[in-house]
Amino acid sequence: MTTGVRRRMGVEERRQQLIGVALELFSHRSPDDVSIDEIAAAAGISRPLVYHYFPGKLSLYEAALRRAADELAERFVEPHDGPLGARLLRVMGRYFAFVDEHGPGFSALLRGGPAAGSSRANAMIDEVRQAAYEQILLHIGVEEPPARLELVVRSWVSLAESTALLWLDGRRIPRAELELQLVHDFAALAAVSAAYDAEMAGILVRILAGEPADGPFGELVGRLAALVPGPREGAPAM
Amino acid sequence: MTTGVRRRMGVEERRQQLIGVALELFSHRSPDDVSIDEIAAAAGISRPLVYHYFPGKLSLYEAALRRAADELAERFVEPHDGPLGARLLRVMGRYFAFVDEHGPGFSALLRGGPAAGSSRANAMIDEVRQAAYEQILLHIGVEEPPARLELVVRSWVSLAESTALLWLDGRRIPRAELELQLVHDFAALAAVSAAYDAEMAGILVRILAGEPADGPFGELVGRLAALVPGPREGAPAM
Repeated sequence: MTTGVRRRMGVEERRQQLIGVALELFSHRSPDDVSIDEIAAAAGISRPLVYHYFPGKLSLYEAALRRAADELAERFVEPHDGPLGARLLRVMGRYFAFVDEHGPGFSALLRGGPAAGSSRANAMIDEVRQAAYEQILLHIGVEEPPARLELVVRSWVSLAESTALLWLDGRRIPRAELELQLVHDFAALAAVSAAYDAEMAGILVRILAGEPADGPFGELVGRLAALVPGPREGAPAM
Repeated sequence: MTTGVRRRMGVEERRQQLIGVALELFSHRSPDDVSIDEIAAAAGISRPLVYHYFPGKLSLYEAALRRAADELAERFVEPHDGPLGARLLRVMGRYFAFVDEHGPGFSALLRGGPAAGSSRANAMIDEVRQAAYEQILLHIGVEEPPARLELVVRSWVSLAESTALLWLDGRRIPRAELELQLVHDFAALAAVSAAYDAEMAGILVRILAGEPADGPFGELVGRLAALVPGPREGAPAM
């Protein structure tokens, strides 16, 4: 009995170890280029033993993706303290740290890797996007979002994703600059939507009221002011 | 000889007809749900004859995708006349008309349809994005874009895509509003980038100098002015 329990524990531990080893390999090179032989070697076990725990590379890839998806979704969880701009900036810092750690795997998956056509992989990608969307909504404090707010938040989550993918392609812009830029992009997308909709205007005014002059939103306003020489017909300039 | 030539012409015509019929079906329902039998019936030929022209559903799907990709890329081509905002608005009008015509197929493809894992399908998607990027750059008139301009334009192309996908999911916001909003989003993303980079600021100032007060950019400035009661510490408000 005792031995049986131990062996079952060992199976789960071995699976978790293999998932960790595989995630590390899938993160640093395109998953298409990683073989089961390499995973076995990195885990210090034989190739047939890998197949004992996972029926094939796809199932191991999906298990690694599951772990990565849970980890990424968690990075959008942020205490509800202080102004929204500062919270989003911390979230973006953790998001880009994740992208940095898992670069090639992140690119390959979102640009169409081996499991990109797998419905399980697609479902996990959507799950992370949905978790990010729900977390941001919680911070904005709107329970039943109007269609325009949903669009702004989901568009922004997608913008963070495409910005991260473009960053990975050469890393020509410092990561910290992009993290801050995405916080500003959020304000900018919300402002554009608010310009055409009274409900969105109310939400934006409430968000901006909580922002300090030296927070990311306040800093942006100052920089835009420096950019545009003078107000145009007395109106705040774009 | 003559008959031979005629038959070869007929083959190409038949292929083009099948591609048109398939594109129509793939556009209006998720491509996963469209069978070769339906395509044969819609084209008025037998199922084996479809296989005579295309080895399988994937190859017919990819041929339909090729035609759709060419058509979509063409919609980003716009005369270089008048202010940029008006040009982008016409491009967005044609882009959303395409999305409207091919809704379910567009969604299925970009959310992971039958050929989403196919490298040919992925390559075609990337080709359209690249064509759109190059067209926009031509309008901005910058031959060797700095990394930050490349990021703004590529991010915006991706934003147009995600906005279109969100619009298709329920169509809760009028299409024309989103077309205009995306033009404003372009200005907003460029402004955020310009706030932190002198080169981008120069490009933005040059673009805005060509904009009329009643164009889409001018209208946005006016609406933002109405939204924010008064300038904050003398600075234009976000």
